[in-house]
Amino acid sequence: YSGGFGAPAPAANDPMWGYFTAIAGQDGEIDAEELQRCLTQAGFTGSYSPFSLDTCRIMIAMLDRDFTGKMGFNEFKDLFTALNGWKQNFMMFDQDRSGTVEPHEMSQALGAMGYRVSPQVLNAIIKRYSKNGRIYFDDYVACCVRMRALTENFRRRDSMQQGCVNFQYDDFILCTMSI
Amino acid sequence: YSGGFGAPAPAANDPMWGYFTAIAGQDGEIDAEELQRCLTQAGFTGSYSPFSLDTCRIMIAMLDRDFTGKMGFNEFKDLFTALNGWKQNFMMFDQDRSGTVEPHEMSQALGAMGYRVSPQVLNAIIKRYSKNGRIYFDDYVACCVRMRALTENFRRRDSMQQGCVNFQYDDFILCTMSI
Ligand SMILES: [Ca+2]
Ligand SMILES: [Ca+2]
Ligand SMILES: [Ca+2]
Repeated sequence: YSGGFGAPAPAANDPMWGYFTAIAGQDGEIDAEELQRCLTQAGFTGSYSPFSLDTCRIMIAMLDRDFTGKMGFNEFKDLFTALNGWKQNFMMFDQDRSGTVEPHEMSQALGAMGYRVSPQVLNAIIKRYSKNGRIYFDDYVACCVRMRALTENFRRRDSMQQGCVNFQYDDFILCTMSI
Repeated sequence: YSGGFGAPAPAANDPMWGYFTAIAGQDGEIDAEELQRCLTQAGFTGSYSPFSLDTCRIMIAMLDRDFTGKMGFNEFKDLFTALNGWKQNFMMFDQDRSGTVEPHEMSQALGAMGYRVSPQVLNAIIKRYSKNGRIYFDDYVACCVRMRALTENFRRRDSMQQGCVNFQYDDFILCTMSI
């Protein structure tokens, strides 16, 4: 018998483990600069522009519950799953590979991801993440990362699932300033 | 008599009006691209790197209560006042003009601006806005812009000044996603 009975495989047997340790370096964790280098070298964005350092920082912040600014192996795998989903989604809308999607497609995308917000909020989000009325891949991902992180921060506090949360100032700043 | 009795001067008599209209172009308002160009051409950041487009976007979002993504004349003047304050503040800490301030100086700066947050929050903020343990001018300003905007959004809803606010999900996303 190799492996256990449904027990998670030890990280060292995971095909991504070698890749992760090569990127992470001596401290065994991935920071924003290392993430940016790895995504650029892997050609993750393809014909789209590489991710900005700022987008890489919020990718880490999205998963970084202990606020170290770094990512371990499991977070790294979670991030890849999310990024692949967003990339597929974006390419589906950007059929001519111009590198941009249009604002109304962005509302469809957010709706498809399960976010329910008012037209006013949708409009504000689209304004924030577009350049000359178009949304580029880097900004699209930044928008998705922040929607996911902010929504998760909100839900985690909305224990009765009533759609409203009572925030202390300190906690409000904590879960918005790092994203 | 020139001028009224304490009445605000008409915009056209303001020495910054010509400058504003030249930047704003046909639509009479300044968007993020126009702001970035103007701050770069004016050499506002001096020996520091120019502002990223993302920082320019949140500068506008900080003042843009109607979510058009653009700034009128009065907002433009408010922004300059704020930017000059932050620049002076930053230069005071960055005495060797290396272009960076250290994390502990960042806590002092935020304290001096009147923000009262826990050490945990301070730590999370500093992690988010530093590169290799140092804070560059662009990130420093991005941090100041977001602290100001988020704090104002919070205060405006905290009408009893109790330090806590009951957020609906839609409103929470509105006042965090655009910043
Ligand atoms: Ca590392
Ligand atoms: Ca304009
Ligand atoms: Ca406006």
